[in-house]
Amino acid sequence: MNSIDLNCDLGEGIGKDAEIIPYVSSVNIACGFHAGDSLMMHKTVKLAKEHGVKIGAHPSFQDIEGFGRRNIQILPSEAYAITVYQIGALLGFVKANDATLHHVKPHGALYNMASRDKDLADAIAKAIFDVDPDLVLYGLAGSELIRAGEKVGLSVYHEVFADRTYQNDGSLTPRTEQDAVIHDVDDAIEQVLAIVDREEITAIDGSLLPIKANTVCIHGDTEEAVAFAQQLTRELKLLGIMLDK
Amino acid sequence: MNSIDLNCDLGEGIGKDAEIIPYVSSVNIACGFHAGDSLMMHKTVKLAKEHGVKIGAHPSFQDIEGFGRRNIQILPSEAYAITVYQIGALLGFVKANDATLHHVKPHGALYNMASRDKDLADAIAKAIFDVDPDLVLYGLAGSELIRAGEKVGLSVYHEVFADRTYQNDGSLTPRTEQDAVIHDVDDAIEQVLAIVDREEITAIDGSLLPIKANTVCIHGDTEEAVAFAQQLTRELKLLGIMLDK
Amino acid sequence: MNSIDLNCDLGEGIGKDAEIIPYVSSVNIACGFHAGDSLMMHKTVKLAKEHGVKIGAHPSFQDIEGFGRRNIQILPSEAYAITVYQIGALLGFVKANDATLHHVKPHGALYNMASRDKDLADAIAKAIFDVDPDLVLYGLAGSELIRAGEKVGLSVYHEVFADRTYQNDGSLTPRTEQDAVIHDVDDAIEQVLAIVDREEITAIDGSLLPIKANTVCIHGDTEEAVAFAQQLTRELKLLGIMLDK
Amino acid sequence: MNSIDLNCDLGEGIGKDAEIIPYVSSVNIACGFHAGDSLMMHKTVKLAKEHGVKIGAHPSFQDIEGFGRRNIQILPSEAYAITVYQIGALLGFVKANDATLHHVKPHGALYNMASRDKDLADAIAKAIFDVDPDLVLYGLAGSELIRAGEKVGLSVYHEVFADRTYQNDGSLTPRTEQDAVIHDVDDAIEQVLAIVDREEITAIDGSLLPIKANTVCIHGDTEEAVAFAQQLTRELKLLGIMLDK
Repeated sequence: MNSIDLNCDLGEGIGKDAEIIPYVSSVNIACGFHAGDSLMMHKTVKLAKEHGVKIGAHPSFQDIEGFGRRNIQILPSEAYAITVYQIGALLGFVKANDATLHHVKPHGALYNMASRDKDLADAIAKAIFDVDPDLVLYGLAGSELIRAGEKVGLSVYHEVFADRTYQNDGSLTPRTEQDAVIHDVDDAIEQVLAIVDREEITAIDGSLLPIKANTVCIHGDTEEAVAFAQQLTRELKLLGIMLDK
Repeated sequence: MNSIDLNCDLGEGIGKDAEIIPYVSSVNIACGFHAGDSLMMHKTVKLAKEHGVKIGAHPSFQDIEGFGRRNIQILPSEAYAITVYQIGALLGFVKANDATLHHVKPHGALYNMASRDKDLADAIAKAIFDVDPDLVLYGLAGSELIRAGEKVGLSVYHEVFADRTYQNDGSLTPRTEQDAVIHDVDDAIEQVLAIVDREEITAIDGSLLPIKANTVCIHGDTEEAVAFAQQLTRELKLLGIMLDK
Repeated sequence: MNSIDLNCDLGEGIGKDAEIIPYVSSVNIACGFHAGDSLMMHKTVKLAKEHGVKIGAHPSFQDIEGFGRRNIQILPSEAYAITVYQIGALLGFVKANDATLHHVKPHGALYNMASRDKDLADAIAKAIFDVDPDLVLYGLAGSELIRAGEKVGLSVYHEVFADRTYQNDGSLTPRTEQDAVIHDVDDAIEQVLAIVDREEITAIDGSLLPIKANTVCIHGDTEEAVAFAQQLTRELKLLGIMLDK
Repeated sequence: MNSIDLNCDLGEGIGKDAEIIPYVSSVNIACGFHAGDSLMMHKTVKLAKEHGVKIGAHPSFQDIEGFGRRNIQILPSEAYAITVYQIGALLGFVKANDATLHHVKPHGALYNMASRDKDLADAIAKAIFDVDPDLVLYGLAGSELIRAGEKVGLSVYHEVFADRTYQNDGSLTPRTEQDAVIHDVDDAIEQVLAIVDREEITAIDGSLLPIKANTVCIHGDTEEAVAFAQQLTRELKLLGIMLDK
């Protein structure tokens, strides 16, 4: 692999957006349902355009209080409608800034539930396709959401996480487990390099799994986020892997 | 005049949308800030497309509790952002339904404040233009909002009201006045016919004023709304005036 | 049994509150999280006081769009906090109207989930007790919520439903089943009379179950609601059973 | 004067609540309308009780996006209802924590508008009184809000601001003016000492005005807030003036 997409959630009012953006190639912008508001969306789209990164919508369950991280049981028709609404809202700012909307990545609980729930995944994929069939769907590598996107005819980006551990079936270790998160920066970077350079990942039981990824999610809301992003892009460059801007 | 646009607010959860829509040529769909939600927007765009009426966004202050009728002092930059957001959100449903977005008509207090407040009017007009310069702005006939739309380069529709009285300077009689609303159906129809057919209106002091209108707002949320709309279109037809679908 | 409590949900903006209230002895008032707002709560508490019915809070998940009927996975600590908040908010209006707060009945999905989920039930019961240990908890007869209330030291009212069928283990037939709802008014009344007069209920498989109920929920949001309530109270009276005001 | 109340806004999610609270004697807790939510209210009441400070409700217009700082034109009946709702909600947490509710201080635009608008002031004062006549109303020294509180029979605290300048008629210099805010810490402390110790204040035109204050508002949301609070309480102590806990 000669290039990789690094993506980051922006416009959530909690991260260092302006500091992290130089190190990523695509951003997922909150649409007001779990964070962000119209002023922040406008500002964030502007920032993304200035930095020449790919712009994506980051739709969520309607859940400000829970930051979109609570599982909410909704009908597929409701998931379809909130996805259309939020993509549209961001599209407004994209058009107002003469920019281009590149992708959609569901947020938090919506993302996780749609990774496993076929009907939910289908509803989200169809919503994206109906708004614009050229949009790319970012979803958990190998998930139901990816499958739904392919089925409906969307381009998809398989997403992996720099700082999450994987089980030997290729799924993420649930956050309820003790070793779900990789806290050591060097370990996280090593995981990304293995995925990008050798297309393999070491599961927590030590077994080696093949993995294909189009995009790596890095976080922008921790103290070390910027330093991590900086070091990661530097090491990728040393391997001859460029950011997929 | 051989044709006129009749517009009505839809998707607010309080009107008889399906009953009134056969009698209008354009609809203004609530975008979730004062009424409506994503499911209702989807359903209403579908309904509008089925009936072949022109579809417009109906952006508002963020004020569910006050139904968008409360004056809220916001900065022009904030008005710009909420307008872009709401037009975008509706645009999502318009695209998902393979329909066309025709116009934008601000709702309630946002409409009224922008009729008088130059800076607010400019911000709203620019928001519409920036999202799509081909959108039409519906505003109070002769208001600051219309002026702002023309200045920025938008097509504008001068709007008049079937059931509101006018003062001798061409402004609406404020709702705080006793005779602000025309309750008699025949009087309301007579007012519309005079505007459309003779391009004149009788102010409440009896003076006759010239008026140019591109669109007439009728209400869909009263008991008599449907009967009124039915009678109005019938009488317009008798005068050879068609709906501007 | 010589008396029974009939309860009804009020202040949700969808029912005929003023018409149904003469036929019930207690009301559950929406607290703004699934329906209602501060103005409506004030008006509804006033109405309840005028009619001398027992006043209860009707807390819900924060879910206007889903009318509180969507399952939302929240932590017990969050359930505790939203319950305290909503009881308090209603208590404000109760105190402002010199009335008395009698009970708390969770709404919709919060009620159903707490009927089965022990931790959620405990959190809600503790919230009620902590605000005021003299409040009565209304919960599904025989449910985890009732058990939690008794454990923490609250008085509890076992609630039954006039228009829902029961399975032979005493649980409600899920709404997903075809025969979950009793549509025939006479059948619904017969079910209430059997519960109240003979303390038994006929399950959908025909078996006869003993049941103890302190309160019967009747709905106020259907066309037939008022006629049903009127007929029910009349027939109860014929059996010498008074409303437990 | 031998003691003074220092108050601070808490539970808004933006300040260093735990660091500032040792230096104040009363706190105003956000009630969810401009900031805060049920979890944060619970936590903040707990914190306030631990520190033995007086607890107050901090009701606002419903305006998360504008942080309660936007003027919203509402009817007095609506102001009454939102005030009752928010006091009640906080009262829930106060009761759940076995604490005492001491006062109510309106927030932001609601505070400022009620300082000048008699009807709004009366509605707020009546709401507080109706919920509990023993609550204390905090309002701008000499304002309409203070007058309304006294008229309805509430105890009132005249409030002054450490870091705001005053005009020669005793009113605050509007924030739109360049010299509205005192940025120098020593100047702010000197102003407080003059008010508390000598009951006088120097207006921006240099004239000396008599002023009576019961409480001084300090901010908890700036970088220097904690250092300022620390220094202020130290200097007050040197003058023999204790915190009015």
